[in-house]
Amino acid sequence: MSGKFITMAHGGGGTRMQELLRQTVFPLLDEATLLDQEDAAALSVDVGRVALTTDSYVVKPPFFPGGDIGKLAVCGTVNDLAMRGADPLYITIGLILEEGLPLDVLERILSSVSFWAKEAGVRVVAGDTKVVERGMADGIYINTSGIGQLQPGREVSIAGSTGGDVLIVNGFIGDHGMAVLNEREGLFTNSDLISDCAPLSGLVRAMQEAGEVHSLRDPTRGGLAAALKEMARASSCAFEIEEGSIPIREQVLAACEMLGLDPLYIANEGKLLAAVPERDAGVVLEAIKANPFGGGAKVIGRVTEGRKGEVSLITPLGSRRLVRAPSGEQLPRIC
Amino acid sequence: MSGKFITMAHGGGGTRMQELLRQTVFPLLDEATLLDQEDAAALSVDVGRVALTTDSYVVKPPFFPGGDIGKLAVCGTVNDLAMRGADPLYITIGLILEEGLPLDVLERILSSVSFWAKEAGVRVVAGDTKVVERGMADGIYINTSGIGQLQPGREVSIAGSTGGDVLIVNGFIGDHGMAVLNEREGLFTNSDLISDCAPLSGLVRAMQEAGEVHSLRDPTRGGLAAALKEMARASSCAFEIEEGSIPIREQVLAACEMLGLDPLYIANEGKLLAAVPERDAGVVLEAIKANPFGGGAKVIGRVTEGRKGEVSLITPLGSRRLVRAPSGEQLPRIC
Repeated sequence: MSGKFITMAHGGGGTRMQELLRQTVFPLLDEATLLDQEDAAALSVDVGRVALTTDSYVVKPPFFPGGDIGKLAVCGTVNDLAMRGADPLYITIGLILEEGLPLDVLERILSSVSFWAKEAGVRVVAGDTKVVERGMADGIYINTSGIGQLQPGREVSIAGSTGGDVLIVNGFIGDHGMAVLNEREGLFTNSDLISDCAPLSGLVRAMQEAGEVHSLRDPTRGGLAAALKEMARASSCAFEIEEGSIPIREQVLAACEMLGLDPLYIANEGKLLAAVPERDAGVVLEAIKANPFGGGAKVIGRVTEGRKGEVSLITPLGSRRLVRAPSGEQLPRIC
Repeated sequence: MSGKFITMAHGGGGTRMQELLRQTVFPLLDEATLLDQEDAAALSVDVGRVALTTDSYVVKPPFFPGGDIGKLAVCGTVNDLAMRGADPLYITIGLILEEGLPLDVLERILSSVSFWAKEAGVRVVAGDTKVVERGMADGIYINTSGIGQLQPGREVSIAGSTGGDVLIVNGFIGDHGMAVLNEREGLFTNSDLISDCAPLSGLVRAMQEAGEVHSLRDPTRGGLAAALKEMARASSCAFEIEEGSIPIREQVLAACEMLGLDPLYIANEGKLLAAVPERDAGVVLEAIKANPFGGGAKVIGRVTEGRKGEVSLITPLGSRRLVRAPSGEQLPRIC
């Protein structure tokens, strides 16, 4: 690269864009299919069913403790595929760059995309780069779309919970949202608020090998509360949650209390909520705990029939209150 | 919708986002799969090869004669799949909205997405909505990613040209870029500069039913010049173009001359460049001309062996000059 910053010409489809692709993007992403520069990648899938998903990432700031926008873009899309029980195969990456973005920022982010794609076992097979004028974006926005292979018998839906299921989360909630907020606002210096951002496809595979899984959702925007409400509604069941069993780190709880935030509504990027039939709950919980991204897993409640879509929280003192869906979001631009 | 403008809460994953989805996005896109609100759509594919592509659209302004950012997003992604010989099946839509965007602007754009998706025979099966603060985007950016089905024997590559092939374009070049530029800058009032934006999958199918097609490329950013250079390089052939045979409308030529622009480098969004074996050139050209998007089709040159990757333009007076790849782009943000 001759310049150290992104210019409008880097998005123009000419030799300056080719330079950016050949000297920066392709070497960092390290995927032969990209080198062909076809209009679309031609790929093999097993005949049958695939899962397809898309997400744009606009997180502010792009780097935060525990991750960055590149890691987030890979993990978020991998996790959306995993929540259907699909094995992630291929992802695409669409970059919207602001004129003036330092090239080394782009390089760090693409290195992270590449690293986490390999970790998650997906290939980045197609991409696109657009540049907008200074002041028309916030440094970098990334879209990742993904295809996963659905194997017979492993397809999971948000609507799959049934009465008697046990509800499990794979660890501490609220870490991601609080880590991004803290980094953005500089609230608590010397804090140990760290994002939980992680690819969960291996964890889901391990869970399904151990036992049956009825339903999965990753509690991202809107936090655990939104995921609980969405799963309860989609299955027309009622969820009962033991408030005291929800794993929340002390530092997250303390930060939330100081800011008047409810950790149930704070985003996660390496967590899943699972509904598992009671008979398999023990083996599935053990499988989660044995996974690098499941050490803090807990049973947090159960699914009952009746009172369709209702989620109630049972406090340690035994009182019951209803969990409401979030309206907007406590913290914007956390993904 | 209670408000008339997009607010940060519309991107928050809560009830305000649900309102936007249920009252505006889902009814306009009219696709049952979206209503499930799963993390990923589960879909069927027939045979073992698919084409996958992604593009972000940042066109300025979002509405222009002959199209808008929604039509562009559908056609651009459909066309990238068609350029591989794939039948477009499913697309995803990722919206990045700027706080304060009038809701009716979003509605018009989504109506256009829906209309053109139906025209092109693709289903919009997954989506994502993010909102960024005022001043952090330019109204609306859209990413569309797409999957197409590759049928045995129909797979086409940018590298497929061979000596003896005839080069065909399906009509007038430069219309899109000049229409967007004119709309943005208000250069020529009462002009009839109109974008050629169109979905080309039906045209490609008709061409392949008529005869053999060796290679396809849509001359978008960088114009016909970039497409010629990319196809010539990828196939290691030389391309010879008869300058006088390139179809350019009088108004585009006149506008280009006034502004000192070369129409060869101006973007198109409803055009393709095809390399066809000489024996099939006649029937393929007829098939193109019979298509609604091919009336102005012309043979513009031929492929020869040797001088790898070189593209030469033969002027009406018989002199020869080399076509260079564009460096940046004459006109930014035309897609």
